[in-house]
Amino acid sequence: MSSLDEFGLIRRLTEGKQPAALQKVAGVDTGIGDDAAVAGITEGFRLVLTCDTMNEEIHFKQITMRDSDIGFKALTAAVSDIAAMGGIPRYALVSLSMPKKTAPERVYSIYEGLYEAAGQWNVMVVGGDTTSCIGGISLAVTVIGEVENGRALVRSTAKPGDAVFLTGPLGQSAAGLESLLERGISSAQWDTFEAGTDTLVQSHCRPRPQIQAGRLLLQSGLCHALNDVSDGLASEAWEIAEASGVGLDLIEERIPVPDELYAFAASRGGTHLTIFCMAERITSWSAPLPRSISLSCK
Amino acid sequence: MSSLDEFGLIRRLTEGKQPAALQKVAGVDTGIGDDAAVAGITEGFRLVLTCDTMNEEIHFKQITMRDSDIGFKALTAAVSDIAAMGGIPRYALVSLSMPKKTAPERVYSIYEGLYEAAGQWNVMVVGGDTTSCIGGISLAVTVIGEVENGRALVRSTAKPGDAVFLTGPLGQSAAGLESLLERGISSAQWDTFEAGTDTLVQSHCRPRPQIQAGRLLLQSGLCHALNDVSDGLASEAWEIAEASGVGLDLIEERIPVPDELYAFAASRGGTHLTIFCMAERITSWSAPLPRSISLSCK
Repeated sequence: MSSLDEFGLIRRLTEGKQPAALQKVAGVDTGIGDDAAVAGITEGFRLVLTCDTMNEEIHFKQITMRDSDIGFKALTAAVSDIAAMGGIPRYALVSLSMPKKTAPERVYSIYEGLYEAAGQWNVMVVGGDTTSCIGGISLAVTVIGEVENGRALVRSTAKPGDAVFLTGPLGQSAAGLESLLERGISSAQWDTFEAGTDTLVQSHCRPRPQIQAGRLLLQSGLCHALNDVSDGLASEAWEIAEASGVGLDLIEERIPVPDELYAFAASRGGTHLTIFCMAERITSWSAPLPRSISLSCK
Repeated sequence: MSSLDEFGLIRRLTEGKQPAALQKVAGVDTGIGDDAAVAGITEGFRLVLTCDTMNEEIHFKQITMRDSDIGFKALTAAVSDIAAMGGIPRYALVSLSMPKKTAPERVYSIYEGLYEAAGQWNVMVVGGDTTSCIGGISLAVTVIGEVENGRALVRSTAKPGDAVFLTGPLGQSAAGLESLLERGISSAQWDTFEAGTDTLVQSHCRPRPQIQAGRLLLQSGLCHALNDVSDGLASEAWEIAEASGVGLDLIEERIPVPDELYAFAASRGGTHLTIFCMAERITSWSAPLPRSISLSCK
């Protein structure tokens, strides 16, 4: 079977995985299978547009993620960007590049995870592109969402006097990654490794976007600026501060660090927390902050 | 300079390349630089969504395209999909993956070509993702367009009695590619090679999407089904036939083959045209056609 035939087969097997009922609810006139998809957005709403790419050996390795996790996380990361604008995710376009020798099973699993995430976050996959490449698997996902006109929660409108808040604890994903790298699980071992019971690993492989939090914050009218924390607190806080022309005070004691993370750090000598939390007490600044900041372990 | 710093620099140098005036005309509330872009579409219109990916050594090599051509063609290929629906291209999201050792100059050139195409086709680049990868450069471009509600020119509505037509001649891009592969131009030689004067090479490296033709065909109300011919006439005709449940008669004498192509084929012994035109007299069929069909050289 030539690679072209294989890609054709894969396309056929991955198409039609979403219920037709969803297509109607989602407002899709034309889905996968034409030159382009045709779909609608809610009247009076604006588009929210983002893309996110995950590359083999850079964002994932066979010892850090199952194939289904790759699909799940790539779509979820883009959905998280929509959530960070206070938007509602609607549609996705998926570009998958893979070496010609890639086993079709890997591709099925990637799409399985992708459709699982799409189902969970109520997103309809309306198109995509499957091509071969040299090097490793590359998965680029574009998510199209919508938001009420003039209400998007951008990062440039934080104001002096605003409280800095987080929607949840930090650091589990980075600790999960470190834990996976230490264990070195082979792809065959994943079946017996209960990733779902390890909250740190779960945070890394199966993140949950804060769609509802974003919507509530938008609807409350109380939130001036919002970011998703995917590159660490320091980096994201800096982005808001720079874009808004303000300083931020991050109070170390109030940064929510979950108990598992202290336990994980303690089991490794207690110094590892520095790379996980990336946050520190900071008072107004003008120069860029470093991307990662140490937080001393209690 | 670490790769991260380089990417940051590249991002800074490539952002703000589009005039602020375009941003207002285009209806962009928030462009590059936040979690996601926020933009509008025309009231009563539907979204048209597509993505297209170009990978090094698969879709281009250093002997077949300058870096600026890669950016130009990747965006243009996605715009062509919008045109093939009768739509108006509006916004683009760009995902660029590249090996860590990639020279920043290559990236600048890719973006230069990308912005050149964006300017020509009136598309605003509103976001993207720049990441590293193993293997070669990969460029995935999503284009978001719009079309009048219920008017998109899909491929499933061809009807018995419809005339089959083409908006222009065929085969130049494939011949241009063959010509480039024969010449084996190194990246240093591109500067002195006048690609612009060679219409076959120009067709391969700098394609022109049929945006206006798509709009006219939609507005005329006379066109029942439309595809862009990027994979050859046979393949695209088959897609329309299969989706619409009809047969198509392609009349060999009426397929527009430009003189340069006959000259190119003749200079190579006259048999090469078979791979360029991929079309043949075909009468109604029910089974899938082969992807490429020979056309005898006159």
